[in-house]
Amino acid sequence: MIGIEAIGKYLPERLISNFDRKEEFGIDDNFITDKIGIQSVTRKNEDEETSDLCVKAYHDLISKATFEPEEIEIIVVVTQNPDYNLPHTAAVVHKKIGLPESVASFDISLGCSGFVYGLSAIQAFMVANGMKKGILFTADPYSKVIDPTDKNTSLLFGDAAAATLITNSPKYVTGKFTFGTIGEGYEELICTKSLYMNGRSIFNFAAKYVPKDVAKVLDQNNLSIDEIDSFVFHQGSKYICDTLIRRLKLDKNKVPFDATYYGNTVSSSIPLILEKQMNDIDNKDSNLLLCGFGVGLSWSSTILKRTK
Amino acid sequence: MIGIEAIGKYLPERLISNFDRKEEFGIDDNFITDKIGIQSVTRKNEDEETSDLCVKAYHDLISKATFEPEEIEIIVVVTQNPDYNLPHTAAVVHKKIGLPESVASFDISLGCSGFVYGLSAIQAFMVANGMKKGILFTADPYSKVIDPTDKNTSLLFGDAAAATLITNSPKYVTGKFTFGTIGEGYEELICTKSLYMNGRSIFNFAAKYVPKDVAKVLDQNNLSIDEIDSFVFHQGSKYICDTLIRRLKLDKNKVPFDATYYGNTVSSSIPLILEKQMNDIDNKDSNLLLCGFGVGLSWSSTILKRTK
Repeated sequence: MIGIEAIGKYLPERLISNFDRKEEFGIDDNFITDKIGIQSVTRKNEDEETSDLCVKAYHDLISKATFEPEEIEIIVVVTQNPDYNLPHTAAVVHKKIGLPESVASFDISLGCSGFVYGLSAIQAFMVANGMKKGILFTADPYSKVIDPTDKNTSLLFGDAAAATLITNSPKYVTGKFTFGTIGEGYEELICTKSLYMNGRSIFNFAAKYVPKDVAKVLDQNNLSIDEIDSFVFHQGSKYICDTLIRRLKLDKNKVPFDATYYGNTVSSSIPLILEKQMNDIDNKDSNLLLCGFGVGLSWSSTILKRTK
Repeated sequence: MIGIEAIGKYLPERLISNFDRKEEFGIDDNFITDKIGIQSVTRKNEDEETSDLCVKAYHDLISKATFEPEEIEIIVVVTQNPDYNLPHTAAVVHKKIGLPESVASFDISLGCSGFVYGLSAIQAFMVANGMKKGILFTADPYSKVIDPTDKNTSLLFGDAAAATLITNSPKYVTGKFTFGTIGEGYEELICTKSLYMNGRSIFNFAAKYVPKDVAKVLDQNNLSIDEIDSFVFHQGSKYICDTLIRRLKLDKNKVPFDATYYGNTVSSSIPLILEKQMNDIDNKDSNLLLCGFGVGLSWSSTILKRTK
């Protein structure tokens, strides 16, 4: 059985404080702390490419797990802000890490649902092709396409990357997955010249569809909502997490909101939380529910079960 | 068991003749007919998007196979020239076809190896998630990024799309796959401002690695080279196909070169040939070897076995 053995992360040191931008955007402390819940956002350096963020997350990963680059059989990069449109970013990461020629590599284009989808995709690919060690990278630095004067995106999104090691010696294994798409809403979060988000529309989508999908994934995995120790939702904003707590009648201590100082990191939001939980020796959560949702519109959920 | 049930295709009607460009590029008839082997290349209309090419291939598919949109459980679009970087093109296709909300959808970023990789990825995903009907789209219109005055790319690449129906009632099933990556060569075929290809370098890569990979995939599938009825190689140029015939000592009648009038269509080159073979009632080939290679550098091979 394969699953998640370890997670490496990278958060750029450079922060933009949203308190410093209150006047520019006509917002108050309450908006920052209670509504979006994001006090600062991370920003990569201009000369850092998406592949560089992946490589930095990889360096964190190798400090947490014991393996040789020669053992890696597949890498997948989930991004919608690649270094180039062609080649795929995974090829650049392959070079920068110095992986063997036998490694399979490709990118998956998905946004905030990308980690959960990507978990299913890489695991399925590994099982089908008899592979035992792979890395799922998530890195979607929206700062590449954000208009810094756009209130709807500039205050929310932070840059980050995660490198999730998938092996046959897992700490977490996945249950059944759910997936969904509303192509009809593809223009609600889109990058033409720069990033555009209809925040109200994305919020309404999440508030309506995530609760239904939580019920569905619980049912598919024969679990009741009380059996879940931690609900790891995509960190769109504090407001959406609070809304999901209310609509699903969840204990708020079971729903981490961790984006306060780095922002909405798209497909890295969920692995950043998992990384923290895995390194917290006091954390004994054994059933986790993951749900990613956003760009597409797209969503995916699954259950993680702790094996040790 | 799942596999390929049917394939739909789309080739734009607009052609550019390479004979009309002999003077501009300083080439002769021999270069066109014997070296590149591509007499004309297809060009989409300017207002046709990548998703539109997919939709046209889908319309061809529904004329060849009997299914309802409501039965589709997953669509994957293989492209490196998406409509937008975000959202993924599959979401746009999802809207334009009018698929249900329950459909999983994402893009895979790969070039000329993308169809073979994509076959493994979508089939593995479907098996892992209990899905019975999905569509693998390939659509990579290089005309979006080609400099029309660049001899190395403008004479070679044509626009096209294919829609490959994957179901539990397959006409072809895949054997084991091989994959590989040489990230070190990622700058040999790259799009920065426009498409750049080091033709010599890509040729050398293919001439060296494809024969090795053919031997590997035969070995993995316990087949001898004589048991293969048709070698469906990515259609980079006639020269590369001729070189592979020579190096692998193949019967040239077993190695189709079909790109003469439409060009190198990237990830659609292999399904366009398969589509033709599937519709040729006289074609009784039962063992096919597929090999895609290019951008990345990246390659992937597999065997197709005819089931009926």
